[in-house]
Amino acid sequence: MALIVQKYGGTSVGDVDRIKNVARRVKETVDAGNQVVVVVSARSGVTNDLIARAKALNPKPDDREMDMLLAVGEQETIALTAMALHAIGVPAVSRTGAQAGILTDIEHTRARITSISGGDIRAQLDAGKVVILAGFQGHSPDGQITTLGRGGSDLSAVAIAAAVKADLCQICTDVDGVYTADPRVVPNARKIDEISYEAMLELASSGSKVMQNRAVEFAQKFNVVFEVRSSFNNNPGTIVKEEVPSMEDVVVSGVALDVNQAKVTVLQIPDRPGSAAKLFQALGAAGVSVDMIVQNIGRDGLANMTFTVPRDDVQRAEAAVIACFPEVEADQLFEASDIAKVSVVGVGMRSHSGVAAKLFAALAEGGVNIELVSTSEIKISVGIDPKDAVAASRLVHDAFGLGQA
Amino acid sequence: MALIVQKYGGTSVGDVDRIKNVARRVKETVDAGNQVVVVVSARSGVTNDLIARAKALNPKPDDREMDMLLAVGEQETIALTAMALHAIGVPAVSRTGAQAGILTDIEHTRARITSISGGDIRAQLDAGKVVILAGFQGHSPDGQITTLGRGGSDLSAVAIAAAVKADLCQICTDVDGVYTADPRVVPNARKIDEISYEAMLELASSGSKVMQNRAVEFAQKFNVVFEVRSSFNNNPGTIVKEEVPSMEDVVVSGVALDVNQAKVTVLQIPDRPGSAAKLFQALGAAGVSVDMIVQNIGRDGLANMTFTVPRDDVQRAEAAVIACFPEVEADQLFEASDIAKVSVVGVGMRSHSGVAAKLFAALAEGGVNIELVSTSEIKISVGIDPKDAVAASRLVHDAFGLGQA
Repeated sequence: MALIVQKYGGTSVGDVDRIKNVARRVKETVDAGNQVVVVVSARSGVTNDLIARAKALNPKPDDREMDMLLAVGEQETIALTAMALHAIGVPAVSRTGAQAGILTDIEHTRARITSISGGDIRAQLDAGKVVILAGFQGHSPDGQITTLGRGGSDLSAVAIAAAVKADLCQICTDVDGVYTADPRVVPNARKIDEISYEAMLELASSGSKVMQNRAVEFAQKFNVVFEVRSSFNNNPGTIVKEEVPSMEDVVVSGVALDVNQAKVTVLQIPDRPGSAAKLFQALGAAGVSVDMIVQNIGRDGLANMTFTVPRDDVQRAEAAVIACFPEVEADQLFEASDIAKVSVVGVGMRSHSGVAAKLFAALAEGGVNIELVSTSEIKISVGIDPKDAVAASRLVHDAFGLGQA
Repeated sequence: MALIVQKYGGTSVGDVDRIKNVARRVKETVDAGNQVVVVVSARSGVTNDLIARAKALNPKPDDREMDMLLAVGEQETIALTAMALHAIGVPAVSRTGAQAGILTDIEHTRARITSISGGDIRAQLDAGKVVILAGFQGHSPDGQITTLGRGGSDLSAVAIAAAVKADLCQICTDVDGVYTADPRVVPNARKIDEISYEAMLELASSGSKVMQNRAVEFAQKFNVVFEVRSSFNNNPGTIVKEEVPSMEDVVVSGVALDVNQAKVTVLQIPDRPGSAAKLFQALGAAGVSVDMIVQNIGRDGLANMTFTVPRDDVQRAEAAVIACFPEVEADQLFEASDIAKVSVVGVGMRSHSGVAAKLFAALAEGGVNIELVSTSEIKISVGIDPKDAVAASRLVHDAFGLGQA
């Protein structure tokens, strides 16, 4: 008998029929002799509806009240899922985040988990019940309802798996697992059987939207092995775990593409100590998330600073930059254009040279011009023209031999 | 400065615009120098949607999970109402039933309040905030979410008013107050300025659907004076309070009409001790709510028992009766037909004779045949043909001089 945590996202519990499907899958897991904790999200669409209603009443709703509001989405799903399990003869009981003792700090709408008691989950499991836990939510020390931010249900699942010492944590979603590239972009992409936390994190931050990074970071910190798999079939998924030596044999595990980036160039920054710090402090204060950064110092003593930001952040970035350097004329200071980011990720990269060379060669052969480059220990990203994004992804995927045999 | 509890039902918070209306009314009360606790229901329709989803998954959903599910309706409203107040500059904070320390027994879906700590409501009020409390819900000693049954938000309002020693409890609804009769039936019906708890209870149980009886009973027990008034205008409503001597001058306060009743006759019951007890035990066990009862013993040693039940309970009543007397042929045992119940209610009735005489005379003059009669200390009800219901209500209303001058 194993103790398994299964997480189902909003699409997987989107309507009554899909909740029935989840119940059937949970029953299969129970019938195979396992104890099961099910973590569910709000039905897809519910959270957006609630947010729309809130914004109609108040353009800037209070964070605490937003948490009070949004927590109802998951609370609805846990009750419905428990009822669906009862209907097919599976004993089950629902628990809110607070009831499961998911304690967080007081940072409403983006709370961090500080501890998990698990409440009576172990006792309920030992009494033969499936426990349905509301994802995304917890409670602060003073008894307020908190939420964990976008994708927080993944975090709830990994955290409860750590707290109850689950044998396996399954993140059930609408894809079959983690792929070497997005199959919609690279048709011969292959499902990865095993991947390290670190490579998973780099893939996610490079545009592969399988899971929220905080959940992966939490899993890494507490060494929770988890599997990303489909809610709709029984194919084996991708196991995400600590790096093992054999993983290093795979130099590159995947290619990620992010087409929602913009390249921003700030021109004529006075080239004196502190200018760059001032710029990025201002962007940080404006809530702009900066990714790749390149600096060039011109012959005239003025620097150009180029970086990428999510496309939605361009306007905020422009306002922050203009406010930062009032001595420069605004229309000569700021340029922005769309850019696509292609990244190759792999823990084996550490011990192998030549990855960058192979990447650049593949792109050059395909006539793709590289506008920006940035590297981390296990990732190389290039910024390219969006029109080349699909072709570049396929070229790079082939160059590293990632396709299906 | 007074401390006022205001309760708004589902219709009053039915959509974003109506929630804004509630916020404006609360602000007026605050601007007049009062502390305010607002109790809200789920938006109208939300509870029924949730129930429909539950039934689609499980025809007999578990009561505990039903409470987990239904509690989200009010939780949504409290957050939205707080946001609406913030938007017009009124400091406010929402509280669930559990956070307000509304402790109940463990009878899920029909829990009874056992105590109310109020949580930090007093502290929040003293800090200058409006407190928005989720009606209809509480929590059991073991931390489970419970609900108080249909109309439970009225009960929440009265109970929190008692707990915080409010100066006034306003039940804001879609009518202007308690009327001498339903104005849709009796056009010259008049709003009652003051009514006793007892008369209010009899009116409600006789088909006047202004408030749930449990809330009135609770108010009577803890001597909470409350006002039934409109959510949509500023007309004074009806004050409900302990009987005072002047109330006895009013022999009859109102006429109530209930057209959702059926008259059931059980024929040929063996006329021996215990037959009636057996019958009503069986009906009780089947969840049939029995109202007026008349027994006639025939010459042949068999009794006829006639009683009224809500029309929706007729089928259950029939099944229970047939199972109860297997020795009688089923098609000779049970008869049912629709009936309307007209009641006159008034605490002055105790000390005045002649009310029944005046009632029967009015109906006789109008040619209305009386099929059943039942009386309590402050109420006389007659069962009549539904086709006579409207005419009878007007005749009786006029006979007791209840109309507007």
